[in-house]
Amino acid sequence: MKQIYAIGIGLIGGSLAKDIKRHDSEVVVHGISRKDATLNEALSLNLIDKKATLDDISKADLVIVSIPVDATVKLLPTILDKIPETALVIDAGSTKEAICKAVENHPKRRNFLAMHPIAGTEFSGPSAAIDNLFVGKTNIICEVEKTAFKLQEKALKLFEAIGMRIRYMNPVAHDKHIAYVSHLSHISSFMLGKTVIEKEKNERDIFDMAGSGFASTVRLAKSSPEMWTPIFKQNKANVIETLEEYINNLIHFKTFMEQDDFEAVFNEMRETNHIKDILNGIN
Amino acid sequence: MKQIYAIGIGLIGGSLAKDIKRHDSEVVVHGISRKDATLNEALSLNLIDKKATLDDISKADLVIVSIPVDATVKLLPTILDKIPETALVIDAGSTKEAICKAVENHPKRRNFLAMHPIAGTEFSGPSAAIDNLFVGKTNIICEVEKTAFKLQEKALKLFEAIGMRIRYMNPVAHDKHIAYVSHLSHISSFMLGKTVIEKEKNERDIFDMAGSGFASTVRLAKSSPEMWTPIFKQNKANVIETLEEYINNLIHFKTFMEQDDFEAVFNEMRETNHIKDILNGIN
Repeated sequence: MKQIYAIGIGLIGGSLAKDIKRHDSEVVVHGISRKDATLNEALSLNLIDKKATLDDISKADLVIVSIPVDATVKLLPTILDKIPETALVIDAGSTKEAICKAVENHPKRRNFLAMHPIAGTEFSGPSAAIDNLFVGKTNIICEVEKTAFKLQEKALKLFEAIGMRIRYMNPVAHDKHIAYVSHLSHISSFMLGKTVIEKEKNERDIFDMAGSGFASTVRLAKSSPEMWTPIFKQNKANVIETLEEYINNLIHFKTFMEQDDFEAVFNEMRETNHIKDILNGIN
Repeated sequence: MKQIYAIGIGLIGGSLAKDIKRHDSEVVVHGISRKDATLNEALSLNLIDKKATLDDISKADLVIVSIPVDATVKLLPTILDKIPETALVIDAGSTKEAICKAVENHPKRRNFLAMHPIAGTEFSGPSAAIDNLFVGKTNIICEVEKTAFKLQEKALKLFEAIGMRIRYMNPVAHDKHIAYVSHLSHISSFMLGKTVIEKEKNERDIFDMAGSGFASTVRLAKSSPEMWTPIFKQNKANVIETLEEYINNLIHFKTFMEQDDFEAVFNEMRETNHIKDILNGIN
């Protein structure tokens, strides 16, 4: 897999391209983007070797699709149309059901591997790409059985080389669970940021009083709306469900406070404390 | 200020004791705690030089009170009763109104300086104490005018030595603003952790799918319920107000999603994105 075409060269696409190239110096990375400015930035950051267009992927060994998930759904059939029989196409979208569905009956479905590397940060664009982003990170692969065996093998070799841990899941389960451990976090963070900004018109005061705890909880509110709006749209039902549960838990907590039931407030926190063990691995 | 008595030797008290000692080798730190085990741990970690009891503070130059805020309200009058005329007492509570009120008419009110160093982490206890915790951190001082001028001076010299940035505020304003930039973050984090734990009974799956974003938003759910319950109790009215606004913002966001108004979803996020600039300082 020497001729790599990266469609979208932001945090994920750019970091993947960098890592793959570092592990195989013969690789040539071709960048494809709607915006020429992005390509120029990616060139100047050495994320890509050459600019390319969608028609060029007829010469691809590997196509990496890291664009907003609505664009992936739209473009993926065309991408499969254009690639040679031997090429592998991978996507990195935060939703998997709609993306898998978009190509379920495509004659080249077996050239596609659906994945979700859990390696995002709040940053986006070519300048967000970093070395070794994927070391130790989980990469969730969906419907692996629908990918040609030889291409599965190539993909896994690549993921291993850049340090990823692999987990297999079906797209429906992926979208349901990821709503809890990723999509909800983003909304909680955005709305927390909104609540504070609305209230604290004097921003200097927020800045001065905000500690690392606040920074940590609102970090994700720096994320790209261009990327996240389509994710919420595609995972609407799951996200709404998580939001309802989250809102209900917050209302409960508030009610305990209003009723001066601080024993219940204490217990709510105590029972959640074992998130420590979950985050540190299972004891 | 050579004889220092630390009442409570956890993250804040322990870190303060460490830093102060490092900047003045003649200082002797005496530890006071309800639990002998805490004192022994603090001794073994070199946070304190000696164990002491409350009566010993009659020999204090400086008393540092870093215990849960309900305990501070109860104990502070007694502490002022017991100190010599020349001693300075500082507290580090996350609420300020009730604490200031508890000693407003105390004959030794001028020996007390109310402060809130914004330097907490999600950890607690003596083992959480670290060097240089306060470098570059904001220390909010309340009702500075009620502290004797000489003691103000001593305190500021000390805070400067350990690297703190000082801000002055009245206790009512402190409690109102801190509800937004700290207390609400803790509740959002605890309830996010709760929502995910309730849903994801298979904890191994949470762990595997959770990325740095989730870890960041639930980090504060590791915090001590013993410390946070009294904070929420003392700052009840402000915290309930912030919670109401936060819940309303979440409901709005959910409604936009239910109505398929993803333009509004986009705008909600776009408008909150400038939290970047707030967190990085004002441009």
